[in-house]
Formats: sequence, structure tokens, C-alpha cells
Amino acid sequence: MTGNSLDRHMPLYAQRTAGMRASAVRSLFAVANRPEVVSLAGGMPYLASLPLEQLSAEVGRLVAEDGLVALQYGSGQGIAELREQICQVMALEGISAHPDDVTVTVGSQMALDLVTRVFCDPGDVILAEAPSYVGALTTFTAYQADVVHIAMDDHGLIPEAVAAAIVAVRESGRRIKFLYTIPNFHNPAGVTMSDERRVEIARICRDAGVPILEDNPYGLLGFDDKVHRAIRADDAENVIYLGSFSKTFAPGLRVGWVLAPHAVREKIVLANEGSTLNPPVFNQMVVSRYLSNFDWQSQVKAYRHTYAERRDAMIGALRTHMPEGTTWTYPEGGFYVWVTLPEGFDAAAMLPRAVTARVAYVPGTAFYSDGFGSRQMRLSFCYPTPERIVEGVRRLAGVLENELEVMRTFGAPLTRQQLRGPSSPSPDTA
Amino acid sequence: MTGNSLDRHMPLYAQRTAGMRASAVRSLFAVANRPEVVSLAGGMPYLASLPLEQLSAEVGRLVAEDGLVALQYGSGQGIAELREQICQVMALEGISAHPDDVTVTVGSQMALDLVTRVFCDPGDVILAEAPSYVGALTTFTAYQADVVHIAMDDHGLIPEAVAAAIVAVRESGRRIKFLYTIPNFHNPAGVTMSDERRVEIARICRDAGVPILEDNPYGLLGFDDKVHRAIRADDAENVIYLGSFSKTFAPGLRVGWVLAPHAVREKIVLANEGSTLNPPVFNQMVVSRYLSNFDWQSQVKAYRHTYAERRDAMIGALRTHMPEGTTWTYPEGGFYVWVTLPEGFDAAAMLPRAVTARVAYVPGTAFYSDGFGSRQMRLSFCYPTPERIVEGVRRLAGVLENELEVMRTFGAPLTRQQLRGPSSPSPDTA
Repeated sequence: MTGNSLDRHMPLYAQRTAGMRASAVRSLFAVANRPEVVSLAGGMPYLASLPLEQLSAEVGRLVAEDGLVALQYGSGQGIAELREQICQVMALEGISAHPDDVTVTVGSQMALDLVTRVFCDPGDVILAEAPSYVGALTTFTAYQADVVHIAMDDHGLIPEAVAAAIVAVRESGRRIKFLYTIPNFHNPAGVTMSDERRVEIARICRDAGVPILEDNPYGLLGFDDKVHRAIRADDAENVIYLGSFSKTFAPGLRVGWVLAPHAVREKIVLANEGSTLNPPVFNQMVVSRYLSNFDWQSQVKAYRHTYAERRDAMIGALRTHMPEGTTWTYPEGGFYVWVTLPEGFDAAAMLPRAVTARVAYVPGTAFYSDGFGSRQMRLSFCYPTPERIVEGVRRLAGVLENELEVMRTFGAPLTRQQLRGPSSPSPDTA
Repeated sequence: MTGNSLDRHMPLYAQRTAGMRASAVRSLFAVANRPEVVSLAGGMPYLASLPLEQLSAEVGRLVAEDGLVALQYGSGQGIAELREQICQVMALEGISAHPDDVTVTVGSQMALDLVTRVFCDPGDVILAEAPSYVGALTTFTAYQADVVHIAMDDHGLIPEAVAAAIVAVRESGRRIKFLYTIPNFHNPAGVTMSDERRVEIARICRDAGVPILEDNPYGLLGFDDKVHRAIRADDAENVIYLGSFSKTFAPGLRVGWVLAPHAVREKIVLANEGSTLNPPVFNQMVVSRYLSNFDWQSQVKAYRHTYAERRDAMIGALRTHMPEGTTWTYPEGGFYVWVTLPEGFDAAAMLPRAVTARVAYVPGTAFYSDGFGSRQMRLSFCYPTPERIVEGVRRLAGVLENELEVMRTFGAPLTRQQLRGPSSPSPDTA
């Protein structure tokens, strides 16, 4: 055996495993979970409004009445009844789909994994927003695909930038496999793609032969009760759509789905079988009964109300406490605000001091594959109460003041150039 | 867009996707699920003895009491309490392990996927029994690893053959990543590795620097109530162990696990997070409460009793009905009998005629990556009642008689040479 003496398996790992690294902030987050820390880091939905008593009875009945089915192996595509209900859910976003084109997955994270598995060889390029969802970047890295980030602003991805990126990547001789986008209430950027841009980006991608992977976990969480029309609604052939019950119902069941053109769907089902044999039947039946027997849309409305109140608390606190030159996005739904600090700040370097001051966030660099984002941070308003959010932002502002003090005394450190990103209410001055 | 006009995405697929093919027998199995067909094909556990009423109450209490935890996101490694309980389960097989080295997965299929992901680049070699579990072969193919099958007999893998294969593969300049084995009540071969061979094979692999991937879903299902000592029990450094609650409790929850040396475990947790974020918390808590609050070992005993009775029914029927020259293994646990037909038969070609005669099985070729197994079939005795099993074997014997009749009239078709395999009670004469 050769190699690292601490890990005798080192010489045996796959190349992709070199890209699997524990986040540098992981150990900090263990601390950040302590109750005295206000965590604006996590993306946990706030479930307290779930009707647990009725759910308890429903789940009990499921086991008593249908236990031998719920506890047995099932189909690699997922149970038919739930796939029909998923089509009804997607119809709210203008999507017309057949249940046969839906595959149920272990959360939409598994759907991301399967789509990447089906499409990406090492070195292939995936286009994604700048910034993009950290879980997607992890998956793309696991398949050794390269992410090319595309500029967005307060109205989402910029169509001209998409077109230019396609040309540039192809001119460099590389293969683009798809454009990954979160059009609604973006994680982490908090912005929403305008309807006009959806149409235009769909056209650009269709014309260029670049499929769109539309990831939409937050689509029903718009605070003005408006549901945006999905990109998939107007292009059934070039768009693969990912959905999830993690934010509209509960993440602990890990039930998501992928809607794909039929030929792609066949590959995805085979990949699903290879990964898990089948998603848990029990969980699918719980979700199916929940959709049938509960007023799930009112529950989503309750979630929206909770999150809107928290968004307001966070935006108000940012206005009150943030130092001059700080900008942030104004999310009309979802869980996240994207904050850009004034020049000279390094959000990743600052995090240990923030945790010491009992507030946590995710540094912007987590959401880029290319090292950008050092002046940005993602603040979540989904889980803490409004009072805790205000207190957390207040603490964060205190940390920033201390940093400013140090910079005034010793001068700002050199930071690398910033990628322009979404930054309402005032423009990113980098 | 170029390529197949039926699937415009064809030019965009990853290379691995070419290896994802629907089984040729898939459409037949849709027919085989009809109630008039006796299916000896599937590996579904028979769950009727589960205490559904008590389970219903327990699951209901879980939601009422701990719903906000059970329905929330969780850790990528799995909940701590269940990992401790899993260590207690593994202790029954002589394994001494720390909960920190256990990762909970979506069934042990997901564990297979993660281990392969962490270790295998395209072209790497995995050693596996001849025949081997079809779901593992699917996963290995998805990662473009090559399987080299190793001869087994009625006492499992043959140590000399393992040693010879390691030398031969390395001499051919290829990298071996691990030996995949199911030591107990093998799927599909129905045989069990002797204790002496476990020690010897562990030594051979350790000396050669080839990790062992020990897959043990059936270990507690020995019909004489004997639990074999796991290979992992005597080698914590070179063995990665996979376990599952699918056969000892219920597969519909999809809860399995992997026990790995600490450095490997870290990679597996990262891969798990990339795949699903975390295995469903709800399901883990159901299993944890089941292990705590139910007499789960008596339930396993009830399963053993059921399956032993069915094994006896199948072996008796094979003795009574099978044509001369047919051989089969005698499983001392688990779900499967491996049948070798007399020369001239082709179990895959015969399957449509068997289904017409209202009996189904899995042709042996499914369990080889190299086209062998054409004279073999896997018969499952786990799900049908003893009466149905006897009727199924009787029908199968009728199909074989018809085939023989055709062969007597027209002569046997040419078949490719057979790989020697386990075949008690009489030797494989191929």
C-alpha cells in the first residue's frame, strides 16, 4: 500500500473523489447550531404551522390500511397516483404534463444527481447563474462537470449574457450540456427571472440546442400570492423541470420529482433504479394522501405568510443597521436575501468573528465554482423568528462595524475583483 | 441538432448513459405481475407477518410527538440514535463498530452507489462473484467500471480463484478497486461462504491491497437460526460493510447503511450529501423506534420461519418435477435458489414460453456482466405461498419438458460455453 499513511485507501479513490471536500465552514456551522447563535445560514423551512395531529392520524391510517403496499418495494419511477397529483401541482405554473413523464426522486437533490449523471461526462460544461445553488454545484463537481457562471441582475439571468456564454464556451471547444437555473426566488440570490426573460432565454437555448434544467423548489412561495409561469410551460421539449415538496410540505420525507421529455425520462428512471431501486413508497404515499386529504394550498399560504413577515423583518433590519455601501436583493418569495458588502470586506474571512458575535450566514464564495463572491453573503429568513432575525442582523452590523474599524486603522486588504451580481436596492459598486 | 430523430437529446448524453438499458425482460415482467402468473422472479419480502396495528400507532405517535424533527432536514450521515442501533445489529454478526463510522443510506442500493462513486473511475475493475447481484452490476456499469467475475461453488467464492484473478487483472495492467461479495445466502446463487474461506479471502485481499465490499442484506435470515460471522468482524480496515433493513423489517422505508473505515466514511458522507442532502429523517426515526419499541428479533424469526417453509416447498418441488440433469443450490437462508438446466437449454430464450405457461423467473444472464448464465435461472421463494411455489415449479417443469421435446425433434441449439458455478446437490456438468 502506498500513499497517505492516514488513509490507506487514498490511492484507490476515483478521480472525482478529489473534488469531494468538506466545506471549510462546516465546523463553524456545528457551532452555529447552538441556540445562542442566530443562524441566518441554514435553509430549513419553518414547519411549526403543519397540522401534526391530523398528519399523525393520516400516517397512522396509511400504515393500518395500506401498510403492506407502503412498506414494500415499488416502481423506480414512483407511484402512479402521486405522479398524477404532481402534474396537478405543476398545472398551477402553467405546465401541461403527462404523469408518465414524471419521475419521483429522493428530494429534488436526487433529481439533480440523476440528470447530471445522464448528461455529463468529465469536462462537460454546465451553465449556471452567478451565484448558484451550492447543492447543485456539489453535484456538478461530483460528476466532474465544469460550471460556467452567467451574470444575473435583479430580474434574473441576463439573456444577452446567456447567448454570449454559449458562443464563448463553444468557441473554446467545449461541450455545453445544459443551462441550470432557479427562476423563482433564487437560492442564494433572492431574485426572480422576469416573464420576458423566461421567453427570451428559452428561445436562445432552444435555438442553440442547449437544454434548460429548471429548478423550482420555491415557485409556490411568492409573497404576493402570484405564481410565475414556468419556463417548462412553454417548452416541453427543451426543458427538464425539477420540483420538490420540501418547501411546500416537509423536507424530512425527501420527495421531489423531475419532469423530462419522454426519451430523457426513460434514462432517468434507469438511473433512479440504479441509485435507490425506487424512492421510498411509504413517503410517496404520505405525500399523496396529504395532497388528497388536506387543504395543502392553504398550508402553502400559511408558509408564505410566515416567510413574508420574516422577509420584511430582515429587510427592515438591513435598512436600519447595515453600514453605508452595503446592498441587498429584495426577494418576492422564497427564503433568501443576497447581501453585497462594501469594498474591502471578505465575508468568508469574517465568518469566525461573526459566529463569535453569535450570528451565522453562508459566505458568498460557497455559491460560485470559481472563487467569486468573497464580498457577498446569503442571509436566510426562513427559520428564525422575526425578533431573532432583527437581532441577528443587528449583531451582523456590529461585526461589520468592527471590521470597518480595523480597515480604517490598517487599510483594507486586497480582494480579488468582484463578479457583478444582483444587488438591489442600489447597484453593486464593485 | 444531430443524432437520432426520436430523441433530440441523444448527442448530449454522457458516455455512461449508453450503458443504461432497460432489461430485455422488463416488458415480460409487467405480464408476470398478473395474478394468474406464479412469479418466482421478484425478490419482494413477504411482509404479512408485520404487526401493522402496532406500527400504525407507533408511526402516528412519531408524527405527533416528534413531527417537527422527523419532517425536517437532517444530517447527511443519518441520525445518531439509529447509527448506534445499527452498531448493535451488526454486533450480532461479531462486528465491533463505532456509530461515527456508519452512514445511513436510502437502502443499501444507495450505499452501493456511493461506494462505487467514491472508488471507481471508468475502466477500473471490480471483482465479483459469478453470478452476482443484478442491482450491483447495474451500479457498477453506471460508473463505467468493469466487472471481472470469480468462480464460486457451494461454499461461496473460491479463494484460489480470488488470488488468481487479482494476479491476472493486474498483469493485464488494470486497476482493481474492490472485491464485491455477498457472503450470506447469496443473491442469486443461494450459497453461503464458509467461515474458513472468509478468513482466507480476507487475508488474500488484505495482502493484495484490495478492499472487500461485503454486502449483507440477508445475514440474519439463516434458517437454522445461525448467524455467520461477518468478514468485517475480523478486518475493520480493509472491509466496507453494507447492511439493510429491507429484509429484516421493510423495504418500503428504504433504510440501509454502510460501515466504512473512518477516512472512507468521510468521503461517503460527502457523496451522500451530494446525492440526497440527507436520507429521509422520518424513515430513520420509524426504523429507530421500531428497533427500540418492538421485539424486532422475533419478527426476524417469524420471517425466517416463513422463508424456511417456502425454501422447503421449492426444493421439494424441484426434486419431484425437474427433468434429469437439472441441478440447484440448497440455500440455508435468504430468498433464492440457483438452478442450472441440462445442456442445450437457454433460460433467457425460454422465458416468454414460461410466462405463457404462467410462471416467471429471472434468467441467469442477468447476473453476469459477460453473457454467461444462459443455462441458469434464479428462482425466488420469498413471496409466493408454498402452494403457489409448488404450482410454479410444476409449470416450469412442464415448460422444460416441452423444450426437451423440441430439442429431441430438432436437436439442441448451440450454446456458448458455461461458466462453472455453484450447483448442489450434484455438480454442474457443463
